[in-house]
Amino acid sequence: MFQPTRFAIWRTGALYRQKVSWRTFSNAPILFASPIPKRKPLIDYRKSAFFRLSGKVVKYGLVAVMGATSYYTYTIYRELHPGQQNSQSSTFENGSPKKTLIILGTGWGAVSLLQSMDTTLYNVTVVSPRNYFLFTPFLTSTPVGAIDINSIMEPIRHILRSAKGEVKFLEASATDIDPENKTIKVVNSSGDERVLSYDYLVMSVGAKTTTFNIPGVRENAFFIKEAHDSIRIREKIMKNIEHACFLDPSDPKRKQLLSFVVVGGGPTGVEMAAELQDFVNESLTKWMPDIAKDITVHLVEGLPHILNMFDKNIITYSEEFILKSKINLILNTFVKGVDADNVHIEQNKVSKQFPYGILIWATGNQPRDISVTLSKKLGEHQSERRGLQINEKLQVLGAEDSIFAIGDCTYHAGLAPTAQVAHQEGTYLSGLLAKLNEIDQLSWKIAQVGTSEKRAIKLKEKMREMVINLPDFVYDYKGSLAYIGAERAVADLKIAGKDYQLRESPFAFFFWKMVYLSMCVSFRNCLVVSMDWFKTYFFGRGNV
Amino acid sequence: MFQPTRFAIWRTGALYRQKVSWRTFSNAPILFASPIPKRKPLIDYRKSAFFRLSGKVVKYGLVAVMGATSYYTYTIYRELHPGQQNSQSSTFENGSPKKTLIILGTGWGAVSLLQSMDTTLYNVTVVSPRNYFLFTPFLTSTPVGAIDINSIMEPIRHILRSAKGEVKFLEASATDIDPENKTIKVVNSSGDERVLSYDYLVMSVGAKTTTFNIPGVRENAFFIKEAHDSIRIREKIMKNIEHACFLDPSDPKRKQLLSFVVVGGGPTGVEMAAELQDFVNESLTKWMPDIAKDITVHLVEGLPHILNMFDKNIITYSEEFILKSKINLILNTFVKGVDADNVHIEQNKVSKQFPYGILIWATGNQPRDISVTLSKKLGEHQSERRGLQINEKLQVLGAEDSIFAIGDCTYHAGLAPTAQVAHQEGTYLSGLLAKLNEIDQLSWKIAQVGTSEKRAIKLKEKMREMVINLPDFVYDYKGSLAYIGAERAVADLKIAGKDYQLRESPFAFFFWKMVYLSMCVSFRNCLVVSMDWFKTYFFGRGNV
Repeated sequence: MFQPTRFAIWRTGALYRQKVSWRTFSNAPILFASPIPKRKPLIDYRKSAFFRLSGKVVKYGLVAVMGATSYYTYTIYRELHPGQQNSQSSTFENGSPKKTLIILGTGWGAVSLLQSMDTTLYNVTVVSPRNYFLFTPFLTSTPVGAIDINSIMEPIRHILRSAKGEVKFLEASATDIDPENKTIKVVNSSGDERVLSYDYLVMSVGAKTTTFNIPGVRENAFFIKEAHDSIRIREKIMKNIEHACFLDPSDPKRKQLLSFVVVGGGPTGVEMAAELQDFVNESLTKWMPDIAKDITVHLVEGLPHILNMFDKNIITYSEEFILKSKINLILNTFVKGVDADNVHIEQNKVSKQFPYGILIWATGNQPRDISVTLSKKLGEHQSERRGLQINEKLQVLGAEDSIFAIGDCTYHAGLAPTAQVAHQEGTYLSGLLAKLNEIDQLSWKIAQVGTSEKRAIKLKEKMREMVINLPDFVYDYKGSLAYIGAERAVADLKIAGKDYQLRESPFAFFFWKMVYLSMCVSFRNCLVVSMDWFKTYFFGRGNV
Repeated sequence: MFQPTRFAIWRTGALYRQKVSWRTFSNAPILFASPIPKRKPLIDYRKSAFFRLSGKVVKYGLVAVMGATSYYTYTIYRELHPGQQNSQSSTFENGSPKKTLIILGTGWGAVSLLQSMDTTLYNVTVVSPRNYFLFTPFLTSTPVGAIDINSIMEPIRHILRSAKGEVKFLEASATDIDPENKTIKVVNSSGDERVLSYDYLVMSVGAKTTTFNIPGVRENAFFIKEAHDSIRIREKIMKNIEHACFLDPSDPKRKQLLSFVVVGGGPTGVEMAAELQDFVNESLTKWMPDIAKDITVHLVEGLPHILNMFDKNIITYSEEFILKSKINLILNTFVKGVDADNVHIEQNKVSKQFPYGILIWATGNQPRDISVTLSKKLGEHQSERRGLQINEKLQVLGAEDSIFAIGDCTYHAGLAPTAQVAHQEGTYLSGLLAKLNEIDQLSWKIAQVGTSEKRAIKLKEKMREMVINLPDFVYDYKGSLAYIGAERAVADLKIAGKDYQLRESPFAFFFWKMVYLSMCVSFRNCLVVSMDWFKTYFFGRGNV
């Protein structure tokens, strides 16, 4: 039994002073229960508020833990045991024709659409050159081994198999679209071609990094957009470091190899530079001190400030913090050209150049070829070079009846090319497609009963109302986040119309982690990333 | 306090029947302690053997857990906080010259030498084209994503920094050795050259996979020896699967793409085939059933049996088991040639061919170029084409005074090219090098005192004895292990001179895991691999 006396003594450690054997320990009921002679209590626990409280805490704590555990076990089970799917069919049970929906891409927009839509309403085919969803917010953590690239690649099959209705997938790129005949031409990596026809087409192909046609960038710079970019950067980092070790310390080549340049002061660029500097400060200084002290990370931005979409205070804080972390912050500077060894810059009208070992290009977007092809075909409806123009229902101007576009491949005033926008657009589109299906059902019923019938008129009325009441897409900006290195993050939040800023406090970093974890497309994803954080925290980055 | 009555009632569940509130629960001391009115016990615990026992179990259990935890915490701490190293110097404190030791390679032999030797006795430089140690026993698990390739790559810096004396590392390949002048020429991946001189050279460069000069193998087959092999196989597997999805089910090309062929019935070949079949049975059947049912894994072996180094019973069991697991086992069959689409075989004097999508070549070894170069230079001393010939002290014949060779690059009757041999050779060599240093010290002292002196004579005597008593390498065969799929492994063990076989029982698989975990070069390594097993077990393989 649990003895106040014993407990009291125990806490003071006096236990040992009165030479108590192991036997005595084993009597303590937290080990197991066997009553021992009672003594007069020092404290009466019934009167102690502390112990009442702690009791409640433990009690409800246990309930919470048990609840959470069972919930997550169930979640995992569901994720790993996809149920039977309704297979595709040309018609619905009532005999009405089922439309074909083709989704191009497996990024944020496409996946949020797939996860929120009822895939039994259409015969859905997804076409993308990559058979996985890439969790881009953590991409900058992967080249330095803080997170394993495989951990942020979610196989698209996991997402498709968990849908209600069967979804076909083709690993291929769309090379041509015919909006007239509603067909697309797709080609796989082995060069095999297929032509698919659609009733509805969703363009969610994303964008590619723009180089502003600066000479030498495509040839010499790495981008940080796809998984293979990360892998190649990772290899290059280690290659340069080992090369530097091989050279004589006096060799000037060494300085060049260890000069890491990131261009672009947006969140991606800042996070990439921060992760590189973390890697130097936390991993290399421990394992390769001679190399660590010679590495310089440069962050180049054309504008006077970085993270321009953030609040002023955050910008100031971030810039000071980044300077403290030894990153060489180069503002008001435009890259004019890149050759094999040097970055040519212009700084307040003065042309300079400095050597680089690795150049990572993290600037804005430009449309992919397929988007350009499509907008050309749609002629005067598409006048914007920055992306596909869409209306409030995310329909592509010039092909409103059949083509939708979401995410980075679109251009629409007030919609930034972010995961947040793409995600919300996907969710909205799933609702719209459901409504469009209802309308199709109505028009089919009308055709069945014959247009003259009384009932037909009612249905027509209902249909007209539905068409009129189709909702528009409204973007709900929730905020921006950025990791700035050394376990610090900044956040610019909009909660219930109010603005909040998170900086300084380490909580911001925790918040950054939590927000993104909650955005993971699967619980597996979520847990695997957490395990990587654990690995990195306790065992350091994998790659040095 | 803990009430026998309550506990008894509790266990029968009667607790609820007599409407006990949460309050009552919270009284139970396992939640927290607050005394409640006593009732008459149903059972007297002092008399209950069960509770006495459970008490002891809990008690010693706790002690064990606490012990283990603190031990491992310490281990991790040591691994991640390498202490100060004695830096290299041309002489010892007593002024005697310190010899230069160059180790070629970062495989099993080199690492076991580095981990067991006192690196303060020599100026040690390690030269290898790869800056990590690869834990080869798990390599076959990586192409199918059962274990992440990064988890079995241990950065060489972790190993070198934990040594007592500073060890230099160069990521480069040795292209030439001059045994006369004791120099080697090394070249890094960027083509920079350096010439290093040594007093002792350790050849632990391993071997490359032999193709028996069968036409088309080098061009079309994958090997499974290095990390990049695994990555390329992994990519190829997914490429073929997606390609098959893209094609029409009736297309004959589909059958070819999904025919996975493994050549070589040794442990590597068998494990590779087993892992592929596991991947099909466990992952693909769930996520891509249409593909899974069309995949065939072929295992081709020239001899009448697989796993020939194992005991007969094990061979029979393994072959039956592998056939059950749907692997197409093709024995008594030699590969005569390989073209882009077909494997040409000869089966009991009959020539056949069958199409393949992926061909993995897991046959024997042949020496690397540098080993060939060296043996050529040593002329008639080296007559063996299968590897460098060594004596009982692992000295290379023809350069006994300065060059040692361990692991797969050597040829010595009775020493198989296994990790086990390389590991033991490395450990032995560390001891030998220590003794050689003692001898050097003696001869230096003799030179100091002048050879005529009385003391010199004593020292010479001592030295002669040491030289005579230098131990020979004796290989202690501990056994062989192989994974044969579906969570089954076989083991052929030699414990205290007795032979034991493990098969059938799932324990063999557990044993397989434990043995290899215990062989991991770092605790980090060990834990990270376990985490991968956990991931795979609960979330399936990462890549589909």
